[in-house]
Amino acid sequence: MTYFSAVDVITTKRDGGVLGDDAITWLLDAYGRGEVAEEQMSALLMAIFFNGLNKQELNTWTDRMIESGERLDLGGLSRPTVDKHSTGGVGDKISLILAPLVAACGAAVPQLSGRGLGHTGGTLDKLESIPGWRAALSNDEIRAQLDSVGAVICAAGEGLAPVDRKLYALRDVTATVASVPLISSSIMSKKIAEGTQALVLDVKVGRGAFITDIERARELATTMVGLGREHGVSTVAQLTSMNAPLGRAVGNALEVRESVDVLQGRGPSDVRELTLALARIMVELVGLDVDPEIKLDDGSGFEVYERMIRAQGGDPDATLPVAEYRDEVASGEDGIVQSIDALSIGIAAWRLGAGRARKEDPVSAAAGVVCLIREGEAITRGQPMFELHADDETHLQLGRDAIAHAVVVGERPVNTEALLLERITN
Amino acid sequence: MTYFSAVDVITTKRDGGVLGDDAITWLLDAYGRGEVAEEQMSALLMAIFFNGLNKQELNTWTDRMIESGERLDLGGLSRPTVDKHSTGGVGDKISLILAPLVAACGAAVPQLSGRGLGHTGGTLDKLESIPGWRAALSNDEIRAQLDSVGAVICAAGEGLAPVDRKLYALRDVTATVASVPLISSSIMSKKIAEGTQALVLDVKVGRGAFITDIERARELATTMVGLGREHGVSTVAQLTSMNAPLGRAVGNALEVRESVDVLQGRGPSDVRELTLALARIMVELVGLDVDPEIKLDDGSGFEVYERMIRAQGGDPDATLPVAEYRDEVASGEDGIVQSIDALSIGIAAWRLGAGRARKEDPVSAAAGVVCLIREGEAITRGQPMFELHADDETHLQLGRDAIAHAVVVGERPVNTEALLLERITN
Repeated sequence: MTYFSAVDVITTKRDGGVLGDDAITWLLDAYGRGEVAEEQMSALLMAIFFNGLNKQELNTWTDRMIESGERLDLGGLSRPTVDKHSTGGVGDKISLILAPLVAACGAAVPQLSGRGLGHTGGTLDKLESIPGWRAALSNDEIRAQLDSVGAVICAAGEGLAPVDRKLYALRDVTATVASVPLISSSIMSKKIAEGTQALVLDVKVGRGAFITDIERARELATTMVGLGREHGVSTVAQLTSMNAPLGRAVGNALEVRESVDVLQGRGPSDVRELTLALARIMVELVGLDVDPEIKLDDGSGFEVYERMIRAQGGDPDATLPVAEYRDEVASGEDGIVQSIDALSIGIAAWRLGAGRARKEDPVSAAAGVVCLIREGEAITRGQPMFELHADDETHLQLGRDAIAHAVVVGERPVNTEALLLERITN
Repeated sequence: MTYFSAVDVITTKRDGGVLGDDAITWLLDAYGRGEVAEEQMSALLMAIFFNGLNKQELNTWTDRMIESGERLDLGGLSRPTVDKHSTGGVGDKISLILAPLVAACGAAVPQLSGRGLGHTGGTLDKLESIPGWRAALSNDEIRAQLDSVGAVICAAGEGLAPVDRKLYALRDVTATVASVPLISSSIMSKKIAEGTQALVLDVKVGRGAFITDIERARELATTMVGLGREHGVSTVAQLTSMNAPLGRAVGNALEVRESVDVLQGRGPSDVRELTLALARIMVELVGLDVDPEIKLDDGSGFEVYERMIRAQGGDPDATLPVAEYRDEVASGEDGIVQSIDALSIGIAAWRLGAGRARKEDPVSAAAGVVCLIREGEAITRGQPMFELHADDETHLQLGRDAIAHAVVVGERPVNTEALLLERITN
């Protein structure tokens, strides 16, 4: 192994140079062994924030994160594998519906997920509101469940891309999260290590997403699609709007309930629309000739959902936790709902107890927000706009404060904006 | 005290924003208390490397580094105080001659110094080759010696600008040393805390300096002069050339010997020229009407030198350490010396044992290089160019390797370049 100096690697990137494969390999391997200091890596991350990584650097960087841990071997399954990743939005419960639905279409969906941080909720936190359900599965359990049920939503083990895990924690405290090469390599290293054959990326753009600008969303999507292709994973990205929350429910048990509604043919139309759009891409990516809408409407998706929850110890018929403290927020005026700010709603749900500020914090299963209005609807003074759910009065008040300015009411009619934006395939 | 988030401070600077006084104050105070993590500070330093600090930010940054420790009170002295700082070059022994010479002119010179790192030597390392001499003085000892002798060269205590000390160690390992605002605030915070009324800055430009570009040297000089003025220290910067080594001797005892030569009216002309130029600025800055050249030639400077060394326990008459292993490097061709590369010579002296790679490393008193040729001189094949001095054969060989390509010999006559470049006074 060639020896490099961390200071030289940082200097090269700082001055706009290109890091060779051997330098990146040395760096990330040494960092994984604790031989490159956290402060050196954070200086490099900031230099990458400014000067980026070219295609070759990014490929090697992603490779080393994958090779830092184990790769799940899903080769022996009877079904083709396809997964989805969302860059994170408010009220985004799509995975809960999509994984069983696509499994009902004949694919295997190995959805290895994380927990929520900040104003966007985590899929595992949502499912943990179901009594008995457990997020931790062994690799053998994952493979067995993919074969028998076709869908798994579980915690990504510590063994997958451990260097990414270490880097992510560092980026979080050093303001180096929002970098296209760093986001791309982080997401894609985990998904590639997970062993899926195909992948759809839901790249969210708007006030409630961490990317607010369509140009940047396009750049991120293109970069990730390229990384997928380089590593043999058929990848398509769908850009979607995230200005208002997705659906009506924001919060763990609240979102599980709404997901079940959609799986049973009810629920908000935007959640149904996005789920079906992503399901169609996934089914197509693995060459299955099935219409997901039929599988949703004939109850097949819901049936797989129930089996998926049971396979992980959960009881899909159990009563979900209900908040002891509730309140409604009413409109102060008459008019038309001009906008609902997803970010404010996400923060309100977080303050109500549904989210966490640090990854050690517990979350409340019952807390959250239910939106009773949609953009473009007429509203009258005193009409309830939101239901707030919390486990105590303190959290309820924090939620009230956070949601106070989430809605703009005006006179003009509103053209509801498209949910599905561009699709990026290369 | 207002509370800020380190991530928000980093984000602001990363995105090109301006940090408020309150944010900088909080940040550096919290960093001093260990409440801002090293990895956060290093990300911020890299963001500052890219986006800089404006004048107000830099003033506040420097203030907080000064206020993080004690300020030496030199107010009660009978003489005006004036100091010199050099940004570091190869063979730069000017302080050893300048401090006693300016004291002989009637000023007090409180030269609080550091040790050498890498290819540039440290003034304290040089003086420590004198038997008995000690670098550590208490504040009371410093004041007493300034009153009685007029010149002190000693170690800057831990109490001066401790946050700068902490930041400097971090910059060293994170490739964030070479940033104008960070260099300026580091140098000036220590000099301002030291309590001097006036200051001359010797800003070195060239192959043997860490700044190779005159534009950048100007920017650094202007920034430091501005910081001095803002903090009530009359400051002038002299840009000087650092392509070939200064003088002939590079190494600790070797440089002490050459300094004594100059103080006794002999020695290399460039060392004498630079010393006198800086001495004239210093004398003028504190309003003394004395010609340093007279004080050098009449032996007053040397007399103060001897008293200064004795005051700190050293014996100026003692025999200095002599290297056990010596070798000469001869020219391989006939011609004219086109250039002598100061950086190569500095690295050779370091490899011979005169310098250190890490601040804990010991240095050899005797090791180093003596240059037997000057740029522009005619040279013949087999003529000695350098004398190498080391404590053992291993170091001697390392020095030989490092110096192998230091000299370019050619046919063309060479115009010797000016040593003194621009002077910057505001």
